[in-house]
Amino acid sequence: MITSVNWISDLPLLATAAESEYAPFVLAGVLLSLVIIYLAGKLGGELSKMMDLPPVLGELLGGVVVGISALHLLVFPDSGVIASESVVITTLKFMGNLTPEAVTAIFSSQSESISILAELGVIVLLFEIGLESDLQELKKVGYQAAIVAVVGVIAPFTAGTVGLIFLFHIPVIPAVFTGAALTATSIGITSKVLSELGYLKSKEGQIIVGAAIIDDVLGIIVLAVVASLAKTGEVDIVNVIYLIVSATIFLVGSILLSKFFNKSFVFIADKLQTRGKLVIPAFIFAFFMAFLANAIHLEAILGAFAAGLVLDETDKRKELDQQVVPIADILVPIFFVTVGAKVDLGVLNPMASEDREGLIIAIFLLIVAICGKLITGWSVFGQQGINRFAIGCGMIPRGEVGLVFAGISEASGILEKPLQAAIIIMVISTTFLAPPLLRQALKEISSEVKENADIS
Amino acid sequence: MITSVNWISDLPLLATAAESEYAPFVLAGVLLSLVIIYLAGKLGGELSKMMDLPPVLGELLGGVVVGISALHLLVFPDSGVIASESVVITTLKFMGNLTPEAVTAIFSSQSESISILAELGVIVLLFEIGLESDLQELKKVGYQAAIVAVVGVIAPFTAGTVGLIFLFHIPVIPAVFTGAALTATSIGITSKVLSELGYLKSKEGQIIVGAAIIDDVLGIIVLAVVASLAKTGEVDIVNVIYLIVSATIFLVGSILLSKFFNKSFVFIADKLQTRGKLVIPAFIFAFFMAFLANAIHLEAILGAFAAGLVLDETDKRKELDQQVVPIADILVPIFFVTVGAKVDLGVLNPMASEDREGLIIAIFLLIVAICGKLITGWSVFGQQGINRFAIGCGMIPRGEVGLVFAGISEASGILEKPLQAAIIIMVISTTFLAPPLLRQALKEISSEVKENADIS
Repeated sequence: MITSVNWISDLPLLATAAESEYAPFVLAGVLLSLVIIYLAGKLGGELSKMMDLPPVLGELLGGVVVGISALHLLVFPDSGVIASESVVITTLKFMGNLTPEAVTAIFSSQSESISILAELGVIVLLFEIGLESDLQELKKVGYQAAIVAVVGVIAPFTAGTVGLIFLFHIPVIPAVFTGAALTATSIGITSKVLSELGYLKSKEGQIIVGAAIIDDVLGIIVLAVVASLAKTGEVDIVNVIYLIVSATIFLVGSILLSKFFNKSFVFIADKLQTRGKLVIPAFIFAFFMAFLANAIHLEAILGAFAAGLVLDETDKRKELDQQVVPIADILVPIFFVTVGAKVDLGVLNPMASEDREGLIIAIFLLIVAICGKLITGWSVFGQQGINRFAIGCGMIPRGEVGLVFAGISEASGILEKPLQAAIIIMVISTTFLAPPLLRQALKEISSEVKENADIS
Repeated sequence: MITSVNWISDLPLLATAAESEYAPFVLAGVLLSLVIIYLAGKLGGELSKMMDLPPVLGELLGGVVVGISALHLLVFPDSGVIASESVVITTLKFMGNLTPEAVTAIFSSQSESISILAELGVIVLLFEIGLESDLQELKKVGYQAAIVAVVGVIAPFTAGTVGLIFLFHIPVIPAVFTGAALTATSIGITSKVLSELGYLKSKEGQIIVGAAIIDDVLGIIVLAVVASLAKTGEVDIVNVIYLIVSATIFLVGSILLSKFFNKSFVFIADKLQTRGKLVIPAFIFAFFMAFLANAIHLEAILGAFAAGLVLDETDKRKELDQQVVPIADILVPIFFVTVGAKVDLGVLNPMASEDREGLIIAIFLLIVAICGKLITGWSVFGQQGINRFAIGCGMIPRGEVGLVFAGISEASGILEKPLQAAIIIMVISTTFLAPPLLRQALKEISSEVKENADIS
């Protein structure tokens, strides 16, 4: 019959035959890295939980243990590590006869894939935080919470930035970025302590929770602005105003258009018949908003957060929430463990004299982080007898959003390693310190209430 | 206070500052690609569903439309495309002032990330198929189904491979690979037609469903063997035996150890307190098994499938199933759309004389695919009056596993484009043809049953 032997060889050759050849090794490297990430994250998270701390802290510490600071199971070329120092790559070398070029190419491809998965993780995290932040609830807590939030953003931001510039002679851009990392309160740990002690519905509890939510929003706007400043590398006042205005318009605009988005979303989700009929349109929206925010020079996570806030208002919310949870469960730990793995705590070795400056900066940041939030309690007005110390303590823990700053700075190379490590130490320390302080502060209320009860 | 300005510059510079600089563009490219993938997949899937065809077919065709064959919205460097031909990259160029080197680097990183996501998609798909295949059910359908399955694997495999080698002078390795792609039956579409017409519990229905499940298992073993052969590039009989034995031991071994795995899994999942307590251990297991299969030179998907089969036996199964569904919903379409996008149907243009050979091969494959399965009906023994034609028709559609072959061949560069395109056309055509043929065949049973009823 037909006997042309050459029809295949007439076609253009595959452009990246070399890459294809390594493909199984890259995949093996990604799979092994994911196994390490999940094991470290889960072990750390569970240990953290046992000690009554938020699991995210354990995921971060799990990352530190498997990362560049200790076991070298999960390392990245942008930390200045070479392929042969990676335990994953060494394992892959046992599997096949790899040339040194192949090893470098595989290490770079594998690391890039894990980094993209981590970035998708933080996008899904912010989408989920958006879904869980109730706009209606936010409107109720009102002015008191808003003032506490604004003071709690401005005070540590100003003190941190000014201190870094004048005391430590850090250049303006990294100083502003680090100052910004001091702003966002983590709602998770505080609300857990409040609910344990039965104070979630108290005046203090309501103000803290409301302020923490507003803080998240302000923190993400601040992040979008400073990260964008860092890209251009100069602080241009016109640019700062453009960024603040565009970030605010982006967020407020999405919220104002949320009725329209919501109706379209519900309409489309109701029409669809195939699998993923809720979660796929939601992710199309979230990823598109993330892309849009990125395209107008803000941060992708701002878009994902806005998408979450918007879809939170639909009657599909509960069902969507439920389906986003397992997706977040497998993607978000990749982000936190990776952030931990990339932090080189070795740069803050107290034994090495050249590292002491970094350690002193870490201590400075911690003091600013605590004092900058403690004073928020005294910004509350018109509330006689309110426990101002408890409100201040409740605002201390930094969590997810603070780590998001560290992660973004890593991805964009804004901060030098010691500053990055100092931020991580600040986040970890505030999270450890807040629960005992808050418990102490709330005991004071208890005894006051008791005294009042005794008098009456 | 401390006034050293140089402590930061003393540290080693970031190794890949250039990569970091492009990072936001790579992320933007990945996000935009995912939006395109989800839109194409969902639109295609829904249209397919409306026409009573399986959604996966629509996802594949959606991929063809946005891919290299048509719109160029989703293209990959390994298809011989350059960066400027990608609509996503052109969009990114509008966002920032990118140098040609930056564009090439971003295109390559973005494509690699999407390819890894697609590979994770097919791993999750096979894990899910494993979770849904009930081992107990498989034991019940017994010998009849096993014989139908084995004949349905051997007949098209042999006819396809021998035909390609002797009629079309295709080299042995691609011929064996293409022959293997003809083996696996898609259970989805057939069981849907059977249940629509109320024949799922009939003798014919039971045999078809049982045979299709066994087919999947055999197909995945065949895939693991031939893909591994393709890597070494030569058919060495010792190697073939090693691969068949190791694939079988791997699968049977996992099943035999499943009691142990299951008890450990349930024990661990019960102990865990934090989020993802079911899904994270399950994915650790699945990804580790996938890595292990890869490490012993089989395919990663075999490991994921084995992990699914094993965890299917636990009492956590239902809960786990529920949580894996949304994860599969967002990852699996990336695989199918990407497979479609990478297929260049242009290489089978009937107008171009040099492409006709490819078209003729596609027609040959389709005939082998249909006849090779039709004859399985006549391998059933000891069943008087059974509808042999209906059983044969039920085995015709190729689906997910056939596409997995096309995807794997793409990733490893085994097949030239016309053969790849011919496989895709074979999968699409069998899926379109099977439902009307099966409906016709089952109508024959209906009238036979009626006649028998009339006589008695």
